[in-house]
Amino acid sequence: MDIKNKEITSRDEDFAKWYTDVCKKAELMDYSDVKGFIIYRPYGYAIWEEIQNYLNKEFKKTGHENVYLPLVINESLFNKEKEHVEGFAPETLIATIGGKEEIQDRLIIRPTSECLFTDHYSKIISSYRDLPKLYNQWCNVVRWEKTTRPFLRGAEFLWQEGHTMHRTSDEAKEETLKMLEIYDRMGRDLLAIPFVKGRKTDKEKFAGALETYSIEALMHDGKALQSGTSHYFGDGFSKAFGVSFLDSDGKIKNPYQTSWGVSTRLIGAVIMVHGDDNGLVLPPFVAPIQIVIVPIQMNKEGVMAKCNEVYETLTNAGLRVKLDKSDKTPGWKFNEYEMKGVPLRIEIGPKDVTNNHLVLVRRVDHNKEFLDINEELVNNIQNELKNIHQLMYKKALANLLANIHEIHSLDELKEALDKGGYAKMMWCGDRACEDKIKELYQATARCIPFDELPFDDTCPVCGKKAKYVVLFARAY
Amino acid sequence: MDIKNKEITSRDEDFAKWYTDVCKKAELMDYSDVKGFIIYRPYGYAIWEEIQNYLNKEFKKTGHENVYLPLVINESLFNKEKEHVEGFAPETLIATIGGKEEIQDRLIIRPTSECLFTDHYSKIISSYRDLPKLYNQWCNVVRWEKTTRPFLRGAEFLWQEGHTMHRTSDEAKEETLKMLEIYDRMGRDLLAIPFVKGRKTDKEKFAGALETYSIEALMHDGKALQSGTSHYFGDGFSKAFGVSFLDSDGKIKNPYQTSWGVSTRLIGAVIMVHGDDNGLVLPPFVAPIQIVIVPIQMNKEGVMAKCNEVYETLTNAGLRVKLDKSDKTPGWKFNEYEMKGVPLRIEIGPKDVTNNHLVLVRRVDHNKEFLDINEELVNNIQNELKNIHQLMYKKALANLLANIHEIHSLDELKEALDKGGYAKMMWCGDRACEDKIKELYQATARCIPFDELPFDDTCPVCGKKAKYVVLFARAY
Repeated sequence: MDIKNKEITSRDEDFAKWYTDVCKKAELMDYSDVKGFIIYRPYGYAIWEEIQNYLNKEFKKTGHENVYLPLVINESLFNKEKEHVEGFAPETLIATIGGKEEIQDRLIIRPTSECLFTDHYSKIISSYRDLPKLYNQWCNVVRWEKTTRPFLRGAEFLWQEGHTMHRTSDEAKEETLKMLEIYDRMGRDLLAIPFVKGRKTDKEKFAGALETYSIEALMHDGKALQSGTSHYFGDGFSKAFGVSFLDSDGKIKNPYQTSWGVSTRLIGAVIMVHGDDNGLVLPPFVAPIQIVIVPIQMNKEGVMAKCNEVYETLTNAGLRVKLDKSDKTPGWKFNEYEMKGVPLRIEIGPKDVTNNHLVLVRRVDHNKEFLDINEELVNNIQNELKNIHQLMYKKALANLLANIHEIHSLDELKEALDKGGYAKMMWCGDRACEDKIKELYQATARCIPFDELPFDDTCPVCGKKAKYVVLFARAY
Repeated sequence: MDIKNKEITSRDEDFAKWYTDVCKKAELMDYSDVKGFIIYRPYGYAIWEEIQNYLNKEFKKTGHENVYLPLVINESLFNKEKEHVEGFAPETLIATIGGKEEIQDRLIIRPTSECLFTDHYSKIISSYRDLPKLYNQWCNVVRWEKTTRPFLRGAEFLWQEGHTMHRTSDEAKEETLKMLEIYDRMGRDLLAIPFVKGRKTDKEKFAGALETYSIEALMHDGKALQSGTSHYFGDGFSKAFGVSFLDSDGKIKNPYQTSWGVSTRLIGAVIMVHGDDNGLVLPPFVAPIQIVIVPIQMNKEGVMAKCNEVYETLTNAGLRVKLDKSDKTPGWKFNEYEMKGVPLRIEIGPKDVTNNHLVLVRRVDHNKEFLDINEELVNNIQNELKNIHQLMYKKALANLLANIHEIHSLDELKEALDKGGYAKMMWCGDRACEDKIKELYQATARCIPFDELPFDDTCPVCGKKAKYVVLFARAY
């Protein structure tokens, strides 16, 4: 399988083209007639469903409940929190006609649902006994964008948005960080992606938030991808929307709020972190098909029976297996599932039937070995999937660590950004320096990473006293 | 628990008021600022999630795949199938402004997605090898309605819509009926609702379909509720949208299409079929909380320990249990979970701890008994849930059968409709007779039920020769 898949552009030739090739050829998505709105095909949507399953369990464990709020927001309601509105108004889709009549208070298709949740909370919270409220919703949102990049940027995407209300600011801040931690763990345990966790600068934070935290992933081309955010709002929305409660001390107070979300963008992260020149490489625990069984000389005696037997054994153990019985050649099938990034391939031919073993090929490194078909089969395969996951995580981590460049001057900054990856820089904290870097090198402050020690005294942009370690990068 | 819940209107006093009382007090939903758009609160949404879990398994077993298509449809695409457009155009919500600019080809918020699926299929189907395509999607849809009735009627609802393409009309027709059968089974096994299955008359069928089948449920007030539909389209949409494939005989053909869906309306059906004057009565397999444990004298020695022990045992067995540790009184808790329709209540007090048993109370009939806390506990509770399900199903079935009235004249028709339930009538097949019944008695043909034998020769409306057995009813 060292033959290059010719339907897919090489990553080094044109990474953007490689990306859309993979999205299309692996049948993850298709374009629709409306610019910016994509079709999530079964193979792409199934990845999202695995992410949903993982997160729903984590959210439930931490006491969150799922709800569903309206698709639309009255323009008058939307306008209640000033900063929020300024951030989102330029990219809203607005419905103006309903049942052939003009709508008086125009309807904004939700770009995010802070307004709706806070308004709802104003009706159902009245006592400290009602707190905390820990809600989450899975839904579609619309942000009107001119550019379309499948999963990364577009008018409509799918996501979850958690919105919570707390009695104290400490509790809300704790929630904000707890959810960021869950996202980070999802990277490590499900997506095999090492995220960088940190706080956003004031310039980059969410419209209306006091603090925004994010997980950032590093793509193969050296660009960063913001992969999830968690916001602490203080009581700003609470006050604007009139949410208050009677506390046990007899005083009326405004609760403190958070919101946090990840979206189908994560599918893009998985593609761009792990993919290679032959297509997708899916981490085993998020792969819709974990194992594909390809029969060799399927008409020879015993081959299909053995394939079926192995299929049943693995499926009954809860593994996601596909047995390709189609009349395509084994070579075609190898190519197809290679391109689709299926983590493990099992080949069974007449010789294997005789020897009661199978051939096991790993997508990630093409490692090939024989495995006996015995009572240890399920265990061995499960271990192999774990090995693959570890291998992929370590590879991505090594790539991340090799691409954090400590810089001490503007020249070094430019050099680092051109190399790709993160420029780790001391920063004075002034917006002006961020703006200058954006203007000069098209890079943004991705985050102020947790647990990084200062390594210099001055900001290399302005020469003033440095306050923070910041990671700058070009980003999607 | 024979005390009437005073927060809820009696069903016989005002059924519509009873319904909205239950929806609000049981915290299933809330209203939003935008008319017709409701908020699905955690307890209501969790019912929907149970329905999703059930159907996703059934859809998967029958080879269907989940996808996600855009929220919006270009007006020009929407206009391609004439009958379809005429049916839906009057109730569409239309977005006309995106990113502050006017949108040239205006965007219809999907009321249903036949157009989008058929258009997508035109791009991915080219050979008989591509067939069948068996797709399903879970999403929100919008139909602009002036009236709002939680779960039953409103501008936005949640549903699943299956859209499939087949090589032959026979295969497509088989699919149409297969999915109706799955819905019917869901009624029997999950919702404890006996549906009437049948074919819609031409007047009542879906815009653009050749045949529409439905499941109809009978509410407590004698009105019918269409609870799910399955449509056979022939190749009408295929032709209008240019979907074709090369068959094995070398000929280019248009595939045959189906679609089928159920929505959050099912939550309304569950409420109105099973509820009583004290509130909700939830069938055990769809209930978000199947068992509530209420400690009696929770400060007495051993009570909380025993409650926790029982909670752990039942939860570990996969049951959905809530242990209410709050400082509210047992009486308040009884009332609360009674109103919320929790199928089983467990009470544990000091005496029960001494005797190592618990008190078990069934919501449906208030049957109360002692149950030993031993190794049979899980089994016994599981059996009790099955018993409750059977009891509820039988009760609903008895009510359905008692309310199908065979009628032979217009007078009898009126009498039957006023009594409530279905008027079973022979019908000539003419639209004019349907229209007349609608005009005279505000009743519609719910369906031509399967497996009903003719019992008369003439249509009681016009006196002409009768062709079909039809069920007429007043409906939601």
